[in-house]
Amino acid sequence: MIVSSLGHLIIEGYGVSLRKKRGRLLVVSSEGKWEFAFKNLREIIITGKASISTDLLKALAFNGVDLIVTTYTGTPLVRLVPARAGGTVRNRVEQYKCLEDGRGCIIARDLIVGKGRNQASNLRYYSKARSSPSESRELYEKASMIKELVEKLKNYEPHGDLRVCREEIMAYEAQIANIYWDAMKIVYGEYGFRERLKKPDIRESAEMDIVNLSLNIGYNLLAGSLWKYVLRFGLDPFMGFLHAERPGRLSLVYDLIEPYRPILDRFIASLLRTNTLKQGLEPKKLAVILREKYYKDFLNYKLKYRGRKYRLETIMFLYVEDLVSFLIGRKSHVSTPYIAW
Amino acid sequence: MIVSSLGHLIIEGYGVSLRKKRGRLLVVSSEGKWEFAFKNLREIIITGKASISTDLLKALAFNGVDLIVTTYTGTPLVRLVPARAGGTVRNRVEQYKCLEDGRGCIIARDLIVGKGRNQASNLRYYSKARSSPSESRELYEKASMIKELVEKLKNYEPHGDLRVCREEIMAYEAQIANIYWDAMKIVYGEYGFRERLKKPDIRESAEMDIVNLSLNIGYNLLAGSLWKYVLRFGLDPFMGFLHAERPGRLSLVYDLIEPYRPILDRFIASLLRTNTLKQGLEPKKLAVILREKYYKDFLNYKLKYRGRKYRLETIMFLYVEDLVSFLIGRKSHVSTPYIAW
Repeated sequence: MIVSSLGHLIIEGYGVSLRKKRGRLLVVSSEGKWEFAFKNLREIIITGKASISTDLLKALAFNGVDLIVTTYTGTPLVRLVPARAGGTVRNRVEQYKCLEDGRGCIIARDLIVGKGRNQASNLRYYSKARSSPSESRELYEKASMIKELVEKLKNYEPHGDLRVCREEIMAYEAQIANIYWDAMKIVYGEYGFRERLKKPDIRESAEMDIVNLSLNIGYNLLAGSLWKYVLRFGLDPFMGFLHAERPGRLSLVYDLIEPYRPILDRFIASLLRTNTLKQGLEPKKLAVILREKYYKDFLNYKLKYRGRKYRLETIMFLYVEDLVSFLIGRKSHVSTPYIAW
Repeated sequence: MIVSSLGHLIIEGYGVSLRKKRGRLLVVSSEGKWEFAFKNLREIIITGKASISTDLLKALAFNGVDLIVTTYTGTPLVRLVPARAGGTVRNRVEQYKCLEDGRGCIIARDLIVGKGRNQASNLRYYSKARSSPSESRELYEKASMIKELVEKLKNYEPHGDLRVCREEIMAYEAQIANIYWDAMKIVYGEYGFRERLKKPDIRESAEMDIVNLSLNIGYNLLAGSLWKYVLRFGLDPFMGFLHAERPGRLSLVYDLIEPYRPILDRFIASLLRTNTLKQGLEPKKLAVILREKYYKDFLNYKLKYRGRKYRLETIMFLYVEDLVSFLIGRKSHVSTPYIAW
C-alpha cells in the first residue's frame, strides 16, 4: 500500500479489505491496519485484489473521493461513478460544438505544439548532458529540426473540417515523432531500446524491452490521471479533437496526455539512469515500482505553468480547467505545460 | 436476496459478501451460499450492506453486468462504470443537436402525450370497476377532460425554442396532473391519500402517507431502470428535453419515466388493494416489499408496444432504442408504451 502526499492511496497485493469505520476509511491487510480521514484522500487506485464494502462506496461518492480499479500496468478498467457526477452539461455541449465549428482544430494544434515543444526540450536537455560530442551534436540538431516543425505548426491556420485538420496536424506529429524517437535511441539505447513500440511483447522480451514497457505503463498512468479531471469537469472522455472517435476509446483523454508524454519520457530516463528500473525485472514488479514513483514523485514535480510554479498534478487540474475556459470562450488557446531543458 | 427471472439480483440485509469464484458470482450471507453464471445476470442492485471483491468488479465490467448501489428507497447513489462504457459518441451528439434544432420539442411533447394517455386510461379503468355510480362518473368525466387535453397537446406545433416549448408543454402536464391526482383521491383515498407529495415526511406520518411513500419509491425504481438503458445506448443522462438542466439532475432519465409513472400508479393501487402494502409498515420494510414486487412482477408485466406484446423491461429497452432511432433520423416520433384500461 502506498499513500502519496497528494492523497492517492494505491492498494496492491492480495486480501486487502477496505471499509468505513467511524466516518473514516479503514484498510486491513495481512501487514496491518490503517485509517484515513476522507478529507485527506483524493483517489483510491486498486491494482491488487481487495474487497470493498458498499458503505465505503457510498462514503467515497459522498466525499468526492474517486475509486478506480486498474490492471497491474495501470490500464483503467472500472471506475466508481456517483449518481450526481457529470451533472454539468454545459461543458460537454461546448465540447461538442468545438468539434464542428473549427475550434476543435485549434485545440488539436495546441496539443501537438505543446508535445513537440517538450520533445525538443528533452533532446536539448540530453544534448547538454552527453559526453560524446557527436551524440551531443546529433541530439541538438534533431531538437532544432523539431523546433522548426513546431514553429511551422504554430502558424498552421485552423479550419472548419476537423477530419482534414486532424490529418494535417497528425502528419506533423508523425514527422516530429520519427525525429524524436530516432534521437531518443541515444538516450535509451544503453537499456536496449531500438524503436518505440506500443505493444512490446512482455512475455518473451521483457528483459530487452524495459524502455517500451515502462513508457507504456507510464502513459497508462497519465491517462488515468487525466481521465479523472475530464470527468470532474463534466467533459465527455470519448469525444476527442485529435484522436478520432472509436467505440470504447477515451479519445479526449488520449488527446490531453500528448504534451505530458515527453515529461514522462524524461522521468523514465531518470529512473533508468539511477537504476530504479532494472533490466530483468518482472513486468509486474516493474509496474509496482513505476506506479509508486509516479504517484510519489512524478505528480509532485514542480513545473512552471501559466506563470507560476505548481505540482504536476495541480497543473493537470488547471490544464483541464484551461481547456474548459477555451471551450466556453474565455480563452483563445489552450495552455500546455512546458518542461524546460 | 432476490433474483428475478430477468436476471436482476437484489442484495439486501447485512454482511453479504460478493466475489468471483471459478468464473461465476458467489454470494455468501448468513443465510447460505449461492452461485450464478454471469451470462444469467443483467444487473446487481445492492440496497443493503455488502462487500464486493475487485476481481468481481472486473468480471462484471467484462461481462456487461451492471452494478448499482442505492438507498433503501431505491435512489441510485453509485454505479459501477466500465472504462469502455459510453463509447458511442454519435447518439450523444444527436441528443445534443435535438436540444437546439426543434426536435427536442417533439420528444418533450410525445412524452407528455404518452403520460397523459396512460393517466386517462387509469381513470377509465377505475371508473369501470367502481361500485359507487357518482365516483364512477367523476372518474369517467375526469378521464375525458384529460383525453381532451391530450388531443390538444398532440396537435401542439413544436418550435425551435426549447425553453418556451418546454414551458408550454409543462403547462399542459400540470393541468392534466391536477385533474388526475384529484381523481386518484377516489382510488387511493381509502389508504389515507389526500394529495400528491414528492417528499412525504417519512418520520412522522409514515402510516398515513403510505401512498405517497410507495409512489416515490416506485418512481425511484423506474428511474434506476431507465438510467441503465440511457447509459447503455450512450446517451447523456443529464441532458433532458422536458426537464431543464440542473447540476446533478438526471434530466433525461426523469423525462423518460414520465409515460411509465401512471403504469406504476396502477401497480401500487393493485398492491394496496391486495393488502401487499399495509398501513403501519415501516418505510424500510415497505421499500423491501416494493423492490421485490417491482423486479419480480412489475418488470415482467406484458404490454403491447409497437404492435407486439413484450415484458415491461423489454419495452423499456425498445423504448430507449426508439428514442435513439428518432435522434438519428430513422423515426418521426418517439413511441411511448400504452397501458390499456
